Amino acid sequence: MAEHIVSSYDNDLQGLRQRISEMGGIAEKMLVDSIVALVRHDKTLAQVVVTSDKRLDVLQREVEENAILTIARRQPLAVDLRETISAIRISGDVERIGDMAKNIGKRALAIGDDFQPQKIVVGLQHMGDLVLGQLKDVLDAYAQKDTAKALDVWKRDGAIDALYTSLFRELLTYMMEDPRNISFCTHLLFCAKNIERIGDHTTNIAETVHYLVTGETLAIDRPKNDRSIDATVASGA
Amino acid sequence: MAEHIVSSYDNDLQGLRQRISEMGGIAEKMLVDSIVALVRHDKTLAQVVVTSDKRLDVLQREVEENAILTIARRQPLAVDLRETISAIRISGDVERIGDMAKNIGKRALAIGDDFQPQKIVVGLQHMGDLVLGQLKDVLDAYAQKDTAKALDVWKRDGAIDALYTSLFRELLTYMMEDPRNISFCTHLLFCAKNIERIGDHTTNIAETVHYLVTGETLAIDRPKNDRSIDATVASGA
Repeated sequence: MAEHIVSSYDNDLQGLRQRISEMGGIAEKMLVDSIVALVRHDKTLAQVVVTSDKRLDVLQREVEENAILTIARRQPLAVDLRETISAIRISGDVERIGDMAKNIGKRALAIGDDFQPQKIVVGLQHMGDLVLGQLKDVLDAYAQKDTAKALDVWKRDGAIDALYTSLFRELLTYMMEDPRNISFCTHLLFCAKNIERIGDHTTNIAETVHYLVTGETLAIDRPKNDRSIDATVASGA
Repeated sequence: MAEHIVSSYDNDLQGLRQRISEMGGIAEKMLVDSIVALVRHDKTLAQVVVTSDKRLDVLQREVEENAILTIARRQPLAVDLRETISAIRISGDVERIGDMAKNIGKRALAIGDDFQPQKIVVGLQHMGDLVLGQLKDVLDAYAQKDTAKALDVWKRDGAIDALYTSLFRELLTYMMEDPRNISFCTHLLFCAKNIERIGDHTTNIAETVHYLVTGETLAIDRPKNDRSIDATVASGA
């Protein structure tokens, strides 16, 4: 009988992990597609990104509800309880990553065929690649319960923040050079911010993986390199 | 004995509600202070806002952990289970509202004494007042389990989105008029976006209150009036 209970609990956990894995795959695809849609002015693809978000929302609610039913039914302790708590937290972060990608998709739909400076496009793509790498790695770290890999993701977020700050400065400069750039540069500013926030969510997931494996909360402050708030540009440009 | 269990469970719920009430108070104060700090260039107050966020993070973790321990220990069913799930969700939204207010505080620190057009200041204050009203009402709706009040908050979010869109257009116009406005207008754009997102979180809380009271999820799409993504301004201004 005890064995039966254990195995039902394992089945529950398996179901949670499968859903999170499906969510991760959707979020990765949404991130890639949103940036492609943005830089190639591909409105069809942008629309696909916006639509995909619904599935993520459904899966996130399922993870949350099933995790809580599992806790209520099986009364897990210690590491097993951490498994279910972590599933709730990670699905929340992945769902928000989908929201960010959806926002980029919506802006891709709005921007239309406005000219985009090559330097900005390259910068956005580079940020997107870095964040995608973080997302893939942290989802692997979760699947493999690899806290070293999770810590590595956590430490690398600073590079994304630094890139965001430099892109932010670049966009301000374009806006100052020519007022006709302001409208679409504002869209790109928010897109860059969305990518940067996806990076923040990957570090949240890294923290959760660390908690899942060790039972401890990462106490030290996360390395932040986002200096965009302090970014000042010579105003007379 | 059964009575004893029931009363322990009630104590657990009481603890969750008290923490959420404390969180709500802190978040309301952070929101008010962040906007005052922004429009009055009050850096000391801005710093207070940034610092206050830490307490919210601690309380949110406590709510999450205690709610889950309650579920594991007491195995609540139906409405009691919804109580604990709702506590987790609402504390998450209030914590994110604190993050948004903290972001406004950080921008208030960065902007310094730059001139701010009166029209923009009034617009930001008005948005802030509306959102603060939403936040107070939805926290009351939660405390009183008043689903009608929650639905009212949920419906009113459209007004905040509409105000955001108009403020967004106004800011773009200022940026186009004079490149010297671009840097601080960008800060104000992000501040307005943060206030708008606080509004989104109040509607999330409204949805949770509805679920808590009725056991049902609001199926209809939320009324959205954010047209800022489509906002176009004559570019040659």
